[in-house]
Amino acid sequence: MGAVSEREAPTGGTAAHGSDFLQLRPEDAPSGGKADWLAGRLRQAITDRRLTVGSRLPATRVLAAELRVSRGVVTEAYRRLAEDGHVEGRRRGGTVVVAAPPARGPKVPHPGRTASRSPFTGEPGADVFDALRAADARVDLTPGRPDLSAFPRTAWLRAERAVLAELSTADLGYGDPRGAPRLRRAVADWLARSRGIRVEPDGILIVAGTAQALTLLHPVLSADGVTGVAVEDPGSLGTRQHLRNGGLATPPVPVDDQGPRVDALRATGARAVLLTPAHQFPTGVVTSGERRRELLRWAADGGLILEDDYDAEHRYDRPPVPALRSLLADRLCYMGSVSKLLAPALRIGWVIPPPRHLHALTEAKRFTDLGNAALPQLVLARLMESGQLERHLRLLRARHIRRRDAMIDAVTAHLPGAVVHGAAAGLHLTVTYAADVPDTELAAAALARGVKCHPLSWHRQLPGPQGLVLGYAADPPGVLTEGVRTLGQALRELTRRSRSSCHRLPPSVTGVY
Amino acid sequence: MGAVSEREAPTGGTAAHGSDFLQLRPEDAPSGGKADWLAGRLRQAITDRRLTVGSRLPATRVLAAELRVSRGVVTEAYRRLAEDGHVEGRRRGGTVVVAAPPARGPKVPHPGRTASRSPFTGEPGADVFDALRAADARVDLTPGRPDLSAFPRTAWLRAERAVLAELSTADLGYGDPRGAPRLRRAVADWLARSRGIRVEPDGILIVAGTAQALTLLHPVLSADGVTGVAVEDPGSLGTRQHLRNGGLATPPVPVDDQGPRVDALRATGARAVLLTPAHQFPTGVVTSGERRRELLRWAADGGLILEDDYDAEHRYDRPPVPALRSLLADRLCYMGSVSKLLAPALRIGWVIPPPRHLHALTEAKRFTDLGNAALPQLVLARLMESGQLERHLRLLRARHIRRRDAMIDAVTAHLPGAVVHGAAAGLHLTVTYAADVPDTELAAAALARGVKCHPLSWHRQLPGPQGLVLGYAADPPGVLTEGVRTLGQALRELTRRSRSSCHRLPPSVTGVY
Repeated sequence: MGAVSEREAPTGGTAAHGSDFLQLRPEDAPSGGKADWLAGRLRQAITDRRLTVGSRLPATRVLAAELRVSRGVVTEAYRRLAEDGHVEGRRRGGTVVVAAPPARGPKVPHPGRTASRSPFTGEPGADVFDALRAADARVDLTPGRPDLSAFPRTAWLRAERAVLAELSTADLGYGDPRGAPRLRRAVADWLARSRGIRVEPDGILIVAGTAQALTLLHPVLSADGVTGVAVEDPGSLGTRQHLRNGGLATPPVPVDDQGPRVDALRATGARAVLLTPAHQFPTGVVTSGERRRELLRWAADGGLILEDDYDAEHRYDRPPVPALRSLLADRLCYMGSVSKLLAPALRIGWVIPPPRHLHALTEAKRFTDLGNAALPQLVLARLMESGQLERHLRLLRARHIRRRDAMIDAVTAHLPGAVVHGAAAGLHLTVTYAADVPDTELAAAALARGVKCHPLSWHRQLPGPQGLVLGYAADPPGVLTEGVRTLGQALRELTRRSRSSCHRLPPSVTGVY
Repeated sequence: MGAVSEREAPTGGTAAHGSDFLQLRPEDAPSGGKADWLAGRLRQAITDRRLTVGSRLPATRVLAAELRVSRGVVTEAYRRLAEDGHVEGRRRGGTVVVAAPPARGPKVPHPGRTASRSPFTGEPGADVFDALRAADARVDLTPGRPDLSAFPRTAWLRAERAVLAELSTADLGYGDPRGAPRLRRAVADWLARSRGIRVEPDGILIVAGTAQALTLLHPVLSADGVTGVAVEDPGSLGTRQHLRNGGLATPPVPVDDQGPRVDALRATGARAVLLTPAHQFPTGVVTSGERRRELLRWAADGGLILEDDYDAEHRYDRPPVPALRSLLADRLCYMGSVSKLLAPALRIGWVIPPPRHLHALTEAKRFTDLGNAALPQLVLARLMESGQLERHLRLLRARHIRRRDAMIDAVTAHLPGAVVHGAAAGLHLTVTYAADVPDTELAAAALARGVKCHPLSWHRQLPGPQGLVLGYAADPPGVLTEGVRTLGQALRELTRRSRSSCHRLPPSVTGVY
């Protein structure tokens, strides 16, 4: 007895044919009126927007074969639509939809975008960065962006060509949720060379940036009984929002000119802390040797350090600072990414968890997305192996120094009395000022004049001096100068108003980072 | 008064210099012994594996500039390492590490891989697909993979070149968590053309495949009071594991030859169900018109349908079946991806949630990874816009038909008495057999003979006939025939053994899908 096959009679009917294109079934057509029928179906699809203006109809030959009608039927249907003015024949471009009746369904509003509200009013929500990004402005001084115009497009394309040429079919299938072995090896070598970290590739997990690293960590931390993660203050608003979204408390730990105050950390009672030791965000403080040793003692007493090494590669006139991870492997979870090295849009980062959390984190990554996409991982691995990434970084560094200097000069000229913090490294400056003007008001006034930046108070939970966080990496000196000049105008205007109304208390500037 | 800048004296010290490469600080070197010092530091880094074999040292010019030493110092240090045999000069390849002392730290074992255990023993865990993927085999008949050798590498590279040429710097920054607007438009058009779905681009969320869609849905469903998602039986093991990992129950709903039994669905009391209406996994049943109407009534009574449209584009000798989403928008969450269209390694998919869940799902995506990577999204958009994806699908279809036919012929020849299900569409066949041999045993015996496949019982919670799920899309006819021949041998061998031991009950084959 042979196998019983359903090939001839699938799902209890007779074999049929048709086209995926609009699910056309020629059986539905009246015999002798096929061109009419086809034209009608296409017209309907154009009217109800299943076919939008600009979309291309299938080649007549192809559609005729799929529908098992003569090619003349399809040609005739297309001709009628062309006569209506719905489509147009374009020699090599095929037949394209060019017009549709005006009727249209209601547009779904952008979720989570509050276009009418200023991003600087009230508590900043999860969508505040989107709102600021969407706002119109001449000059964008928001922090956290490298010089994206320097993205190595040619090198990326060349590496992609090589990857596509040598890729195995297995590489295109489902992969290791921890990431491509080749990239994990390249990252291990990169971190050894540039960050002083010794780790085997099997100890690394490739993720979609630090945001994902935190998402994967939430359940792992919760399972460990961690209910809160202490954060630096000032410290990144985005990170704090992220931890809170994961149901974790974020007790603040003040930062002074040596780094986070470990006595204050102990006082919070938190069992985990998120730190930026190489270049504190936003103050730029480098955690001192003594403070590092105190942190190691705190970790030895049962604490877990989450090290966000977000922009350590960008340093200018100070010695390189190895990652804390180079001193501590057991009680530390290291996180890095290419967002500041190459581009945030690549969504590639890495985590080196403490060994005891590696398995749980891998499982979390598996269930989240089965692992990062393969092609960009392999392209990045090549850029790391070939030394192109180092070259890119050197190019960026030279450019960033000029931009930083231009911004400092502009601050000197246009924001007299302001104090610049954290200039030795990174992609941004923090500028504090003595004037009695809330920084959210200043940022709002700047935005009204076409300049985007972050108010320092966004990145605080504790009281402290007013200020702005200003990115300088993404734009050329002229643009930066113009932006800071506008900030100066806005501050002068607000100060005048504040003085004339005389309702505010004098400022008490105490914060030195 | 000018701004006070920390530029000259960062973090309270004197300006210093050094290299990110191994965090070298020339201040540490004894004066007059700099080459010695540098050679020592490099040797140490090679010994402790911060510099691995194959890695390239910086160009002498570059390292000398960074350390502010003469180039001769670096050249001399490299020469000493070359004399040790640690490094080798290669004209254009620079100076490369070629050897290191044998001492090495302990290797971290692969988490979640149980190499010694057969994947077919006991309950399949979350890592069972990894374990099967990692197993050595001559022939891989696991389902769910398209013909990856057909991946349009040239078209992909061409589209990537165009994308890199026209990309704005803003495209390289942080983007819309819902996905690139251009891809959402292209997907909306694609789904309108090929799946009969009318949706505005703003109603679509780009995600990292269906696995991520489910992860994002878990908290949204939980917030809605949904504690369980009913699943088809047989139905995908991977999906079921995923739902369970999200803390959701997965009550089974039997599938018959019309699709999932809606009376049984009502009896579970579940408020949500995950379905594969266009081509049920693994049986291949197309949900009938009457059953679709019953499902719509169930949804109207408050149910939510999760439609997993995982391989609907691959259909051969049956008419196209529009997505359920084309009939129902309010109570249905549609999920699709390019995993079966192009390659799983791309990790790109889309969700069309019910409008009331769109905002929560967008926020979940934001916190998970801030949105998919930009470049692959834009490349895919171009392939969709230009008609290349349709062309690719036509090419695949012709190839898949030949492969499917070869597999059916092989089943007829080598698995006499077996019944083939679901041949009219998809990338796999389900084959049931009457012999009294558990399918996990058969799959294990096949793997021992070098052939991978899924036992049907993996994809079941309810009792039913033994069988195998066999992918045919990924390999040419000769390989498939060889694989099925081996399955036949294994089955005959096991049947003989089973008869001679006479301990088993006779089989009761009742399942018709």
